[in-house]
Amino acid sequence: MAKVIKIGLIGYGTVGSGVDKILTENAKQIEQRIGAEIEIVAICDLKPIEKKDVFITKNYKEILDNPEIDIIVELIGGYEPARTIILEAFKKGKNVVSANKAVLAKYWGEVLTHARIQKKLIYFEASVGGGIPVIQALNEGLAANKINKISGILNGTTNYILSEMTKNNLSFVQALKNAQKAGFAEADPSFDVKGIDTAHKLAVLASLAWASWIKLEHIKTTGIEEISQEDVSFLKNEFGYVIKLLGTAQMHNGKASLSVEPRLVPKSHPFANVEKEYNAILFKGDAVGDVMFYGKGAGQMAAASAVVSDIIFLSREVANETAGKIPYATYNSKNKIKLLPKGDDAGSYYLRFTCVDKTGVLSSISGALGKCGVSIAEVYQKEPLGSRGKKGVSVIIITHKTKEGSIEKAVKKIDSLGVIKAKTVKLRIEE
Amino acid sequence: MAKVIKIGLIGYGTVGSGVDKILTENAKQIEQRIGAEIEIVAICDLKPIEKKDVFITKNYKEILDNPEIDIIVELIGGYEPARTIILEAFKKGKNVVSANKAVLAKYWGEVLTHARIQKKLIYFEASVGGGIPVIQALNEGLAANKINKISGILNGTTNYILSEMTKNNLSFVQALKNAQKAGFAEADPSFDVKGIDTAHKLAVLASLAWASWIKLEHIKTTGIEEISQEDVSFLKNEFGYVIKLLGTAQMHNGKASLSVEPRLVPKSHPFANVEKEYNAILFKGDAVGDVMFYGKGAGQMAAASAVVSDIIFLSREVANETAGKIPYATYNSKNKIKLLPKGDDAGSYYLRFTCVDKTGVLSSISGALGKCGVSIAEVYQKEPLGSRGKKGVSVIIITHKTKEGSIEKAVKKIDSLGVIKAKTVKLRIEE
Repeated sequence: MAKVIKIGLIGYGTVGSGVDKILTENAKQIEQRIGAEIEIVAICDLKPIEKKDVFITKNYKEILDNPEIDIIVELIGGYEPARTIILEAFKKGKNVVSANKAVLAKYWGEVLTHARIQKKLIYFEASVGGGIPVIQALNEGLAANKINKISGILNGTTNYILSEMTKNNLSFVQALKNAQKAGFAEADPSFDVKGIDTAHKLAVLASLAWASWIKLEHIKTTGIEEISQEDVSFLKNEFGYVIKLLGTAQMHNGKASLSVEPRLVPKSHPFANVEKEYNAILFKGDAVGDVMFYGKGAGQMAAASAVVSDIIFLSREVANETAGKIPYATYNSKNKIKLLPKGDDAGSYYLRFTCVDKTGVLSSISGALGKCGVSIAEVYQKEPLGSRGKKGVSVIIITHKTKEGSIEKAVKKIDSLGVIKAKTVKLRIEE
Repeated sequence: MAKVIKIGLIGYGTVGSGVDKILTENAKQIEQRIGAEIEIVAICDLKPIEKKDVFITKNYKEILDNPEIDIIVELIGGYEPARTIILEAFKKGKNVVSANKAVLAKYWGEVLTHARIQKKLIYFEASVGGGIPVIQALNEGLAANKINKISGILNGTTNYILSEMTKNNLSFVQALKNAQKAGFAEADPSFDVKGIDTAHKLAVLASLAWASWIKLEHIKTTGIEEISQEDVSFLKNEFGYVIKLLGTAQMHNGKASLSVEPRLVPKSHPFANVEKEYNAILFKGDAVGDVMFYGKGAGQMAAASAVVSDIIFLSREVANETAGKIPYATYNSKNKIKLLPKGDDAGSYYLRFTCVDKTGVLSSISGALGKCGVSIAEVYQKEPLGSRGKKGVSVIIITHKTKEGSIEKAVKKIDSLGVIKAKTVKLRIEE
């Protein structure tokens, strides 16, 4: 008779019930992969659950205190009590599977240090990229590489919204409503649309890639709320650019720049065709070059697929009695990543100024850009886009590669010239 | 002092020296991941090698017989002596890393059975998809899924040739020459262009996905030698299709169909933009949906990246003394996959007939198609393409989804009508 690995599931929502379903339906196949059986013996959720032969509780402590349980699967999300559950689980001698990017990003160092000290494992494939096995790829498959760049469409909600804006010419507000109707945006979408969820995921990926702790405050984060339909259409039709919310972490001679912001992606870029709730993540390794992963970033069964793969391989370690001998993710608290000074990251930018229609405006704008060291690649002067600015003209500038600090200085200077009638739009073009 | 895992490298060509390079340059990072050091202690190659403090030999037996060596890295390719080396390595108590898709595809059952019996591991990430960690993703990251479809651009040489034909309007012969010049095709390219290399890789993926042994004879294999520039251009310009050599394995209610053949990929398909030596592999899992992986399928450092990741995680198992407790890949010799009867696999097809220019030809062709149960979606009658057929007309048919057997029957019938002047072109359209 095979050994039985006992699971305590904390959080029986969409993903939790999906995990239960896969473990039941694919039990035989999974047992073969582990050399042991997996059994959910206890479930904690605040809503009532009916399930035979499983201990049900609303109090997670009753799960943590159960000495039979080998693995805690934490699927409640948010910072607390998730953090407490994870740290307590290690103390009680349990290994952990978590899908919780928020708690991982915010407490990375604490969580991994506790795991190492208690000689327990934490797996977290579902925290980034839904069902795409991107954590494993980065942590194991690409382990031979120094990772120089991480770039990704990491949030299904914002990608759904931007896809709707692009394909169906909707405003941000209309597109958000559609995403909510389709179940891809929550009632309060602020974590997603403000880029915070993407920043959480980027922090997890970068911390993992660099065996360090990239904190949320290291990531310059801008959301998509201010993206206008006018820019979306204009960029698509005139330049062939698609706007995507990208999380990007890049090494420049040992110094890191990290950002979450809407960027312009050329149509030939592999990210350009990543639509709706799909995610795509690109790693640049020193040996492997560019590797990209693509798949559903949201949805019950995609996330459940990732959680179950974690359960399988963690169970294998438990069955082998090797769990925790070596940490899953390497984290070295002494390994401090130096950050590129603010404003030093360089790229090409799309700038759109809404100006008064007056002789000499273009000259003052280009003059101000020049003084700030911003070199112009292309200039367009147009009727103003959409209803913004109503009178006046749109001056559109595509810059050569320039430090962000110079761009910001130039925009500030131009905004103060007394010729600007609406908020200036500034979007970086992804290479 | 950390434990040292000792490696014997058999085959010190491009990939082998790349492996050496990564292990040296990233030694510190790698040691952190394993909790042990890795050292190449012996190298076997037929050409002379100079390397300090490493035992060099032309006789692989001297590597296998060295009791110090923990892991054999087999990078010589081909069926023999690779097969003997791998099987002997297990017998001598060594674990194996191999990049050899040929030996894995041909001897899958034997290799995995020997590994299981001797309680040794074989890792083979570099056998498919170069540096893309696709074996690991399939075997571990997607382990929660039943895999219903595998589809991939698995051969960098043929993809390079087809890209050249498409982008630069070259003939197959010219494009092959360019690929050879660029180092992406061998002097004897037949393994690649005939689709055999793709079939090897597909066999490995499908065997792994289905915990069975998909033999090469189960895979209907067609190469790209007969693809004409005329069809490439016509399909691109008139229909927006790109020709790609695809390896495809699909389950239809428990019965598998497997093929390697050039297929037509719509421009919106994620494979359409996979150019040159890049590979892309798509899996359809019952839980995760579609997941795609993309990266360099060829090149020294990409392949070396995969070999080194195998060395790292195998070394970890060796250091933990868990190597071989459970096989890496599940293979059950009793698990026989049923094959879909020949001709029963269905798809839409592009058919191009070069016909005599005579009244009633179109009617006889469409009549024959109808009699064989082939339903027509679109018909075009054109001047003949290119110089083929010189006189006469091209009749181009796009069919509805039809069993391949019916298509073949219809084409045979039409070819015998006495109106066909050149070989009929038949290409399946990828969904």
